[in-house]
Amino acid sequence: MFQKSVNITLDSKCRLFQNLHGALDEVVLKFEDGRVRARNVLYDTLPVIIHGNGPTKLQINYLGNYIPNTWTFETGCTVCHEDLRPLTALKESEYPQVVIGIFIQQPTPFVTVFFERLLKLQYPKNKLKLFIYNQEAHHERQISSFLQDHGSLYQAIKFIGPEEDMDGAASRNLGLDMCRKDKDCDYFLSLDIEVVLKNENTLKILIEQNLSIVAPMITRSGRLWSNFWGALSADGYYARSEDYVDIVQGRRVGVWNVPYVSSVYLVKASLLRSELTDYELFNSHILDSDMAYCDNARNKGIFMYVTNMHSFGRILSTENYQTSHLHNDLWQIFENPVDWQESYIHENYTRIMKDKLIETPCPDVYWFPVFSDVACNHLVEEMEHFGKWSGGNNVDTRIQGGYENVPTIDIHMNQINFEKEWHKFLLEYIAPITEKMYPGYYTKAQFDLAFVVRYKPDEQPSLRPHHDASTFTINIALNQVGLDYQGGGCRFLRYNCSIQAPRKGWALMHPGRLTHYHEGLPTTAGVRYIAVSFVDP
Amino acid sequence: MFQKSVNITLDSKCRLFQNLHGALDEVVLKFEDGRVRARNVLYDTLPVIIHGNGPTKLQINYLGNYIPNTWTFETGCTVCHEDLRPLTALKESEYPQVVIGIFIQQPTPFVTVFFERLLKLQYPKNKLKLFIYNQEAHHERQISSFLQDHGSLYQAIKFIGPEEDMDGAASRNLGLDMCRKDKDCDYFLSLDIEVVLKNENTLKILIEQNLSIVAPMITRSGRLWSNFWGALSADGYYARSEDYVDIVQGRRVGVWNVPYVSSVYLVKASLLRSELTDYELFNSHILDSDMAYCDNARNKGIFMYVTNMHSFGRILSTENYQTSHLHNDLWQIFENPVDWQESYIHENYTRIMKDKLIETPCPDVYWFPVFSDVACNHLVEEMEHFGKWSGGNNVDTRIQGGYENVPTIDIHMNQINFEKEWHKFLLEYIAPITEKMYPGYYTKAQFDLAFVVRYKPDEQPSLRPHHDASTFTINIALNQVGLDYQGGGCRFLRYNCSIQAPRKGWALMHPGRLTHYHEGLPTTAGVRYIAVSFVDP
Repeated sequence: MFQKSVNITLDSKCRLFQNLHGALDEVVLKFEDGRVRARNVLYDTLPVIIHGNGPTKLQINYLGNYIPNTWTFETGCTVCHEDLRPLTALKESEYPQVVIGIFIQQPTPFVTVFFERLLKLQYPKNKLKLFIYNQEAHHERQISSFLQDHGSLYQAIKFIGPEEDMDGAASRNLGLDMCRKDKDCDYFLSLDIEVVLKNENTLKILIEQNLSIVAPMITRSGRLWSNFWGALSADGYYARSEDYVDIVQGRRVGVWNVPYVSSVYLVKASLLRSELTDYELFNSHILDSDMAYCDNARNKGIFMYVTNMHSFGRILSTENYQTSHLHNDLWQIFENPVDWQESYIHENYTRIMKDKLIETPCPDVYWFPVFSDVACNHLVEEMEHFGKWSGGNNVDTRIQGGYENVPTIDIHMNQINFEKEWHKFLLEYIAPITEKMYPGYYTKAQFDLAFVVRYKPDEQPSLRPHHDASTFTINIALNQVGLDYQGGGCRFLRYNCSIQAPRKGWALMHPGRLTHYHEGLPTTAGVRYIAVSFVDP
Repeated sequence: MFQKSVNITLDSKCRLFQNLHGALDEVVLKFEDGRVRARNVLYDTLPVIIHGNGPTKLQINYLGNYIPNTWTFETGCTVCHEDLRPLTALKESEYPQVVIGIFIQQPTPFVTVFFERLLKLQYPKNKLKLFIYNQEAHHERQISSFLQDHGSLYQAIKFIGPEEDMDGAASRNLGLDMCRKDKDCDYFLSLDIEVVLKNENTLKILIEQNLSIVAPMITRSGRLWSNFWGALSADGYYARSEDYVDIVQGRRVGVWNVPYVSSVYLVKASLLRSELTDYELFNSHILDSDMAYCDNARNKGIFMYVTNMHSFGRILSTENYQTSHLHNDLWQIFENPVDWQESYIHENYTRIMKDKLIETPCPDVYWFPVFSDVACNHLVEEMEHFGKWSGGNNVDTRIQGGYENVPTIDIHMNQINFEKEWHKFLLEYIAPITEKMYPGYYTKAQFDLAFVVRYKPDEQPSLRPHHDASTFTINIALNQVGLDYQGGGCRFLRYNCSIQAPRKGWALMHPGRLTHYHEGLPTTAGVRYIAVSFVDP
């Protein structure tokens, strides 16, 4: 009656208005040319005004990432360059003050590399204060080494060690509060130890973004795992939003309003002194500390963003990280292969094919860079740390048959439980070179014997002519002639051809039996180390 | 009393006289400077006159080979050049007439070679008549081939084949009688098929020796087995004389009076018409025919001699001679290795090291002569005779795994039961070259796969690039480019190096995997055969 009398119609099919409450599943994005609309799939209508409140706020945030033309396929993000706080206009002395909170809550690979990267972060260090929380005694050596060498560069350092017996949530509350209470602090950058921040400009980029809370998107290499959630499940845990995969894989680029960020994010200090004054932001009876923090922010109506406008880096896997060795990172080739390669593979390795860096010092012998200096050092140190060098006798219980015709003073890879990782290394970094240089030969890089040899003038200086029990042999020099030792090298007798200046980190690859009868030339001073693998025995 | 009265002493200690009867074991040779005496070991005396009769005749013959100075260490034989019948004074037309009796009583290897050698015997063939007795149907082909090609060269030929069902003794009686009854016959040369008469002047040498019965010493290669006995046992069988080994091994050289000769010996025809007129000289109820013959000669007081003044040849083993194949001699590498080598190994093989005949057509590839033309022909003919060529499919039930990635049309050595012999060949003739050319590599020449490949334009003309399942590969060309086929050869892709004019009987030796990726070049006409071995797989 009322409708008729005033000549109006009830919008029962959401032609104009869409209330999200109770209708979350009915409303989807409809991408049109150059704009985005909400579509009611129940009525097949295109409502003009969307209303969300209470539990549907997250969905309206999600829709707001697109509608009406915040992000379209044609334009990408249209607002991401608005309201920026450009740093380029400022002198470095005018840069905002930032407290960086670094959190180490579990044994983590490549911690030394993390601090090297922190050092390279493009930001005036006198504008940075560090809050470092470390729960792991295992990592104290690396942290104190960093602080000793570079700590003085920073404006201030607060360090909480494992002896303080503080839990993770408490440390994060304390870290935030360090900025909150510091009147000079403009931003707090939360940075977990497992974050690999490849982009040296990350901090600047985040500041310029000028948002309350903003995280640089980082992902687990080659996986869909990232440091943000696109949606929440009904009970507040992870749910996959429709656009999650596209964002993670970089098919949609922008700055995204999301319900959860973690691992690394920048918080405006002003926020800590207004909406987020609660000291115990990370505390909850139910939720993990990271989820408690995001929950608190959401409840205060504070938007959290993640940006994938740049490539920022990745996040390490800390699973299965054993700390029983000296250089545990050597064992990370399976769990964190990209970081393993960055640390341990020679910087020129990836371009040896393209730039023809493979040399041929003797017939059918190939010579190429494969190990970084760090790899060489770690492997030698690991072996010396293990210390059970063989006696160089013919009788050798470690090998099949128990008899070695041409014994060396050595430690086998399997003695340090490194054979699976070493096989993976041979398969990933040696086999492609083998198959390239010996066309038509295919290898699965199998080996029975791989070991590090130690040559010393007063121990075993050289090795008499012999063949190897291999189809091909890989011989990697692990230290530097002239610096670490004098002499050394390898001579192929049939070709009367020697490699007399071995290069640290470079591999010699040569046929093992039949043609390449060879000897180890005398080490006349110092100690020489080589890693030898008899591949395809 | 008598002694006293006539003032003589009884020679009870054999100071003057030695009767051998009952004292055989007491009398030995005593070699002095330039002469030989008998020594009585019982009394330690040196009797001057030796008497032998009846059963001790053989011992006095033995002593007579030395005492007083027939043969001494200082002079050698002093009488061997006496009473000769030199042929050099005669024109060939005046040469004595000889009947050569050839006896084939069992399947015997290298019969074709025997007849080739007979043909080369230095003696005017119009002075030779052949008596050939063959009990083995298996050998008829070879004999008729010889008679057809060369029979007309000889003055006369009498041939007894297996169809006449004559036994060995009867044939030998008949052979001797052919000479006995032939008034022109001056000598009978008995020659068994297993005799390898390497010395082409044997017949002339024996005639010049001018003895009733004389045998050229021949031995089983590398063994003490020969065609004479130096002594007889009490029951008339073989016994070893003290000088037997020295004579066989050539440390004592001379013409020796012995109780038994066999296999090859020359008999004066005049003897057959005087002392040895008995037709059935080879018959006995107890003894084998050869022993019966010598027994008869001894009983007639006729001396038999064996001479080792020259090297004459050897005697084949006929044991384990299988006749199931086309070319059974190929299987003789174990039983008669010297003859196998003479037939089947390339004439230049033994001097390839000394004369540097090994060529290097491509890097680390060696090329050398190893097979004679006959070996190549026999192997190809044997394979074609067997005939079960593979289909060239990937599925191959003959090999482990049942799948061949790069199949050829071939027959495996084990399909003709030739793998043990082939292994022996590789071990004897290839391994030494391998170990010479690839120093430091030691091989037992093991193989899983060795086979003869057939390339034909309309069947399988070529083989795509591949590696071999070997440490090194042996590839022997079995026929002649330009003659038997066009095209063919082998290309090593990594070295861009080809062997395009394969030489029959020459082996290519090259590393199997890794470096020597290779292909079989197209055979464009005819049929090409190669023998391939994947050594040390």
